[in-house]
Amino acid sequence: MTGSNSVDRDLRRRAEAVIPGGMYGHQSTALLPDDYPQFFAGGDGAWITDVDGRRYLDFMCAYGPSLFGYAHPQIDAAYVRRLGQGDALTGPSALMVELAEAMVGMVSHADWAMFCKNGTDATTMAMMAARAGTGRKTIVLAKGAYHGAAPWCTPRPAGTTSEDKANQIFCVYNDIASLEAAVAKAGDDLAAIFAAPFRHDAFVDQAAPDPAYARRARELADQTGAMLVVDDVRAGLRVVRDCSWEAIGVRPDLSTWGKCIANGHPISALLGNDRARAGAASIYVTGSFWYAGAAMAAALETLRLVRETDYLERIQALGQRLRAGLAERAAAAGFGFRQTGPATMPLFLFDDDPDLRKGFCWSSAMLERGVYVHPWHNMFLCAAMTDADIDFALDAAEQSFQTLKTRAHDLPPVEKLAFLAAR
Amino acid sequence: MTGSNSVDRDLRRRAEAVIPGGMYGHQSTALLPDDYPQFFAGGDGAWITDVDGRRYLDFMCAYGPSLFGYAHPQIDAAYVRRLGQGDALTGPSALMVELAEAMVGMVSHADWAMFCKNGTDATTMAMMAARAGTGRKTIVLAKGAYHGAAPWCTPRPAGTTSEDKANQIFCVYNDIASLEAAVAKAGDDLAAIFAAPFRHDAFVDQAAPDPAYARRARELADQTGAMLVVDDVRAGLRVVRDCSWEAIGVRPDLSTWGKCIANGHPISALLGNDRARAGAASIYVTGSFWYAGAAMAAALETLRLVRETDYLERIQALGQRLRAGLAERAAAAGFGFRQTGPATMPLFLFDDDPDLRKGFCWSSAMLERGVYVHPWHNMFLCAAMTDADIDFALDAAEQSFQTLKTRAHDLPPVEKLAFLAAR
Repeated sequence: MTGSNSVDRDLRRRAEAVIPGGMYGHQSTALLPDDYPQFFAGGDGAWITDVDGRRYLDFMCAYGPSLFGYAHPQIDAAYVRRLGQGDALTGPSALMVELAEAMVGMVSHADWAMFCKNGTDATTMAMMAARAGTGRKTIVLAKGAYHGAAPWCTPRPAGTTSEDKANQIFCVYNDIASLEAAVAKAGDDLAAIFAAPFRHDAFVDQAAPDPAYARRARELADQTGAMLVVDDVRAGLRVVRDCSWEAIGVRPDLSTWGKCIANGHPISALLGNDRARAGAASIYVTGSFWYAGAAMAAALETLRLVRETDYLERIQALGQRLRAGLAERAAAAGFGFRQTGPATMPLFLFDDDPDLRKGFCWSSAMLERGVYVHPWHNMFLCAAMTDADIDFALDAAEQSFQTLKTRAHDLPPVEKLAFLAAR
Repeated sequence: MTGSNSVDRDLRRRAEAVIPGGMYGHQSTALLPDDYPQFFAGGDGAWITDVDGRRYLDFMCAYGPSLFGYAHPQIDAAYVRRLGQGDALTGPSALMVELAEAMVGMVSHADWAMFCKNGTDATTMAMMAARAGTGRKTIVLAKGAYHGAAPWCTPRPAGTTSEDKANQIFCVYNDIASLEAAVAKAGDDLAAIFAAPFRHDAFVDQAAPDPAYARRARELADQTGAMLVVDDVRAGLRVVRDCSWEAIGVRPDLSTWGKCIANGHPISALLGNDRARAGAASIYVTGSFWYAGAAMAAALETLRLVRETDYLERIQALGQRLRAGLAERAAAAGFGFRQTGPATMPLFLFDDDPDLRKGFCWSSAMLERGVYVHPWHNMFLCAAMTDADIDFALDAAEQSFQTLKTRAHDLPPVEKLAFLAAR
């Protein structure tokens, strides 16, 4: 691959000068294999093209936003149509009411909606609405769960204070006793219990929600007068056409949405029931672009496709076929290969791979064959993927397992992930 | 006006059901005169059209984002072109580097840039970068200054905790002694001094920065090793083609930008110098749509127009003509009418008007004549405005002063602003 990533290398050098550390946040490749491109030229459907012209079948889908594929004609047309009439104005358009009605109509627990831009905006607003509504401060969260990158929730401590993370008690996801202990510890100050719809932490196997855990969270919220919050920013619309916990029969008071609700156009949302309404109405939250119409038009078109197409059944079927095919090929090559999470949002980890050297080698081999997989973050399927794409991925995987087999006895340590092996 | 705002009334009724309190944030009309429309159909150039078809010359410019006018052909074309290649992808595009270079090239104090979505993202990142870079916690802010709507800075306490507002010491804008006292109180824990480029708080006269105050803030930051932050989210590009304090010869370490840098397309930015780089590189901040290319393409086109056109001199000249014309007409009608702030970002307040009943009456009279002014928030001029627009506004103002004169002796109290009179 030497020399073939020269545009990327030049851009990284320029970025090093004008962007702190060269890149920041979840799209930095600092913790990915060295051959992963940092910069992309474009995306179409299920495929992305890097700045050196190499194309990849993309199992990250922009880390979730692409649900129907990149540069989707109908959704983008809805965005552009509204753009021509004016986007960010001195007040909202009727689209804001229509979108609130559409989301309330789709999500069973929801009686109202508020719109914002980042997933973090929605989770922060959920916390504020719960605190305002209950007059209490403490929130219970699962250790290791990602709920955004504001000072109160960002996973890295740099730049945060102990006060930013005050009034938080941690439990273990799916561990009922630890949840009960956390709630007991909060005493009469419990404002909210936060929950991911399933465990989708980085670096570890994903885990489906234990329905008993979810039901207990609901009971504890009811008993204490706290709000139950399901953070569906990442998983929303890839599990069910509703809040993801609807699949296990548990309705939260508040749910947070983002990423794919407008197929990648910038909008996120906080949804709530009537119990949570007064608290939400009392907080002051806002943003310069939160009332802009174009992303709302795109969200309405996305939700129409959600309602009127079999996108979910299709990505579930594609995901199942990918999962079965990978399991077969990994086993044939003799690897313990764990595929966790919903088939539409898989995470792949190799057995006996503490610093992910096998995962890095296999992922790089996939990349070289035109398939972009992530070695430690959950991935995403989109409705632009086809059976032929899955065949392509499975062929690449078969060859990549062989590549790994040849090299497995002699893989270098992954220095940048040494912290994992040290855990 | 009875009956003519029926679409707005219907939308408000629907919104009441599906949006907490009917609307939230800075675009809620809850604290505006009752006849102000909540919902808009569109915008073109300097004009907006409400959902009942009434058109207004818009002196709010979406609360700042519209710098070159709504639905700007070239800027929107840049956005749409990039949309066709893919917007939010699995990594950034070259546009992110180009935009960082463009902003660093334009803003004298800046050596690097980070992009985000909300103005609040940028101010929060400034706080985190300062804390990370200094290893300290305390920030000094001016009382009443708006720096966003996250728990640490939102102006309303509902849903926030005392810990959210910990490590903050307040001074009085332009009061050097109070600034020195706040810095002294912070002792060896001062991470940052925040400053608006001029005082643009709501409900009170705006005030230009005292250069001695700005210079003293710079000195105190240097002496203590703290970071000086200028929050240019609202004022950026309407004072100078640089950080607004460049006009008075003071360079901050960090500056925050948003609103109009892409003429209303959703993007904001944190800029910093090399002194602030390591802190910025160490924090974990991110958002689902922060790497998306279309808003960056629009920002590049906006900055090109900033560099290559006389937009600033034009809006300054228009603003001066508006200011002089209003002063003349107010005086002729016998009103004490205070116009404060830069001519490109005026605020209008009447003398002897504690609950703004005169301001409400006059603003409503302007609205009825097709001019959208704000009775207590600073306004914005945009480069799509023409001399004819200013003439139109001045004619409306002359008539509106007469309307106010007829009614001034008998104006009802503004119940929703009673808190102002009680101050």
